[in-house]
Amino acid sequence: MAEALESKYAQSQLKKLNAALADGRFVSVRKLLHELPPSDTALILESSPVKTRDDLWELLDADFHGDVLEELSEDVRNGIIGKMMPANVVDALEEMDTDDLAETLSSLPDQVLQDILQSMDAQDRLRAEQALSYGEETAGFIMNTDTITLRPDVTVDVVLRYLRLKGDLPENTDTFYVVNRTDNLVGLVPLTRLLTAAPDDKVSAVMDEESEAIPVNMPDDEVASLFERYNWLSAPVVDEKHRLVGRITIDDVVDIIREDAEHSMMSMAGLDDEEDTFAPVLKSTKRRSIWLGVNLFTALMAAAVSDLFEATLSQLAVLAILNTIVPSMGGVAGNQTLTLVIRGMALGHVNPSNSRWLISKELAIGFLNGIIWAVLIASVIAVWKQDFMLGTIIAFAMMVNMVAAALSGATLPIVMKKLKIDPALAGSVILTTITDVVGIFAFLGTATLFLL
Amino acid sequence: MAEALESKYAQSQLKKLNAALADGRFVSVRKLLHELPPSDTALILESSPVKTRDDLWELLDADFHGDVLEELSEDVRNGIIGKMMPANVVDALEEMDTDDLAETLSSLPDQVLQDILQSMDAQDRLRAEQALSYGEETAGFIMNTDTITLRPDVTVDVVLRYLRLKGDLPENTDTFYVVNRTDNLVGLVPLTRLLTAAPDDKVSAVMDEESEAIPVNMPDDEVASLFERYNWLSAPVVDEKHRLVGRITIDDVVDIIREDAEHSMMSMAGLDDEEDTFAPVLKSTKRRSIWLGVNLFTALMAAAVSDLFEATLSQLAVLAILNTIVPSMGGVAGNQTLTLVIRGMALGHVNPSNSRWLISKELAIGFLNGIIWAVLIASVIAVWKQDFMLGTIIAFAMMVNMVAAALSGATLPIVMKKLKIDPALAGSVILTTITDVVGIFAFLGTATLFLL
Repeated sequence: MAEALESKYAQSQLKKLNAALADGRFVSVRKLLHELPPSDTALILESSPVKTRDDLWELLDADFHGDVLEELSEDVRNGIIGKMMPANVVDALEEMDTDDLAETLSSLPDQVLQDILQSMDAQDRLRAEQALSYGEETAGFIMNTDTITLRPDVTVDVVLRYLRLKGDLPENTDTFYVVNRTDNLVGLVPLTRLLTAAPDDKVSAVMDEESEAIPVNMPDDEVASLFERYNWLSAPVVDEKHRLVGRITIDDVVDIIREDAEHSMMSMAGLDDEEDTFAPVLKSTKRRSIWLGVNLFTALMAAAVSDLFEATLSQLAVLAILNTIVPSMGGVAGNQTLTLVIRGMALGHVNPSNSRWLISKELAIGFLNGIIWAVLIASVIAVWKQDFMLGTIIAFAMMVNMVAAALSGATLPIVMKKLKIDPALAGSVILTTITDVVGIFAFLGTATLFLL
Repeated sequence: MAEALESKYAQSQLKKLNAALADGRFVSVRKLLHELPPSDTALILESSPVKTRDDLWELLDADFHGDVLEELSEDVRNGIIGKMMPANVVDALEEMDTDDLAETLSSLPDQVLQDILQSMDAQDRLRAEQALSYGEETAGFIMNTDTITLRPDVTVDVVLRYLRLKGDLPENTDTFYVVNRTDNLVGLVPLTRLLTAAPDDKVSAVMDEESEAIPVNMPDDEVASLFERYNWLSAPVVDEKHRLVGRITIDDVVDIIREDAEHSMMSMAGLDDEEDTFAPVLKSTKRRSIWLGVNLFTALMAAAVSDLFEATLSQLAVLAILNTIVPSMGGVAGNQTLTLVIRGMALGHVNPSNSRWLISKELAIGFLNGIIWAVLIASVIAVWKQDFMLGTIIAFAMMVNMVAAALSGATLPIVMKKLKIDPALAGSVILTTITDVVGIFAFLGTATLFLL
């Protein structure tokens, strides 16, 4: 038995690799890469700048190409495939499972995909086209076709003898599927059941008929939440006629769970989920500029609102100084509500039957927050600027903006979801625009009425 | 075989339950709850306001209490346990696996925990204390103790006969563990191997000696990344003497993966990961107010910086109007970098050997972004305000702030991690303070120099 895992293993290997690469000791690099499991090689490639990445790939034995490509994130993988000869890509794809093949091919730019398909022989091309035939982000797309099927009328003993003859089982096999003559799924037999059953029991007697099957076109995030909710390790996939077409295993679902959870965080900052931390400067700049452009537009809108009060601002410079406080507090409070509701929707907690309740709850919090921070800011301003009236005005604006923030934070994601817009992507820009505009209007407007 | 899963099943059940509850048809509610799997009941409880939640819990058969508690999130679970009689809690805990027991007990307030421990008989208390003996967020804390161990010198046939006698295997058993006389782990036998091996093979001949074991004190996020990286379904846990103490299964790891991924998103908005979407108003207000307080402080700091330029602002109201644009752009650009680096660190891509490279990359992006948005804002201002000098000044400030944003976005998380502060929690406040202060200084300072 190997030693207990050294947790920083991949990191120390990365250090060694970098040193060997810097010194031009290519034989050592090759040797080090040869010893690593594919997932560690993938991690190292993802942790390297593009140039180092290309050098390492050149030095990696072609036998490992497929296994490593499987483990890479989309952006990094496409970068590498784009620089490979199509024939070499075909070789690398040959050993892949259907689900990994589908994922790899579908994310490629069209031209690269066509080149690769054309370099394939007829059989491989058929397999690739089959893998690509299910819509992206569906159960069919992430399933594997390597199911082991049993007939209901054979005995456990026969099955065991068959398995011994067959030898190796597909990776992560934990369940056998029982199908009838027309390939309809009629039951499941967990491996554990097979081990503990009496040898002369019929499969039909030990199989589980109650289990659920996943329709081939179910969205992958629903598949993931079913796995998470019921603690499944694998699940059968059936077509519209309830024929078994494949199985989904937990390791593919784990990736979806992580991606979905990350998606909101990345989108809220205006980043692409698959964004490669070490992408070239120009590519990253281009990707991030859309978000900055949107933000410039909203910042100019806020400035245009302030512009309406130019006369007020030119008479009272103190208003200019305090003008950012109310919008900033509204933005933070609104984003808290927004984030909570977006997560609640992702976990399936927020739905039409309780959204009205949720909105009133958030409004109540907004109201309470408004009172707390209004009193606080009024006291600070009254002391700092020795102006009680000014304190009252900023307090009123704070109150208004906190309620507006809560209302928009709670309703925006619900409305956007109905309009089929991703709330994580656009929610926080729209929210900030609302809290900026309302905050400035409330503060400068009230000040214009009462201070001039 | 049941029908293919209806994906909105839980939602339609929730609707029915709510209707029955509203009409006071308690018998129907009980019946509906009785038919649901525990995870669906948990989802429904989490999707309900506290009052409804309490009513539903009252109506739920006590036999299901333990299974449902296991599936609930911390906040909701503690709320329910807090209202139960200690003796009833003890009954509910009796059937729990060690890992779920540890998680449930450890998150309880101290007084409640003491009451519950005191209501237990000696044997249960011992089990509870054992479950709690490993540090939270370690492998020991999330492991189960229900391993099936084999001796190396018995034959496969003997093992199979033993398993048939034993009957049911623990949930999610996919591997048997081979231990010697002193309980040291010497190998693993996957179930699939046992099925395909010849009956007279010795266990020592079919076992896998190369596999890795997890040290009992390894942090749980490292455990999760190992599972993710190597696509494990389960892994043995060993103590410092390499004795087998338990096993970790993928279903527990999935929860950690989701929690870790969500943690960053929630922390960046100043929320607690476990925050219950339907928590009472007062509790939520209190929790969120810390973050709002910090933000008020930083907003006041930004105002204090503007205050330094009161003379300038009182002469040129246009500066007051444009004062928010540069800080806002810096904040967004900096947050993009910050989010990317935080995610890169979570995925293990960012480490000491490449962080310098990453910082220079982000600086280059900041510089490029600075040029793009400086030119754009200068043109907008030159046209809008008919003032070329003003455009040049805001462009210069934009340039400076974009570089400052990139630099702080990239270095902050790296520095904070070294200081053992969670970058997701405090990173974005510090960053926004920096971009606000630098932005205002650069804009109003330059304007004071050149426009007065």
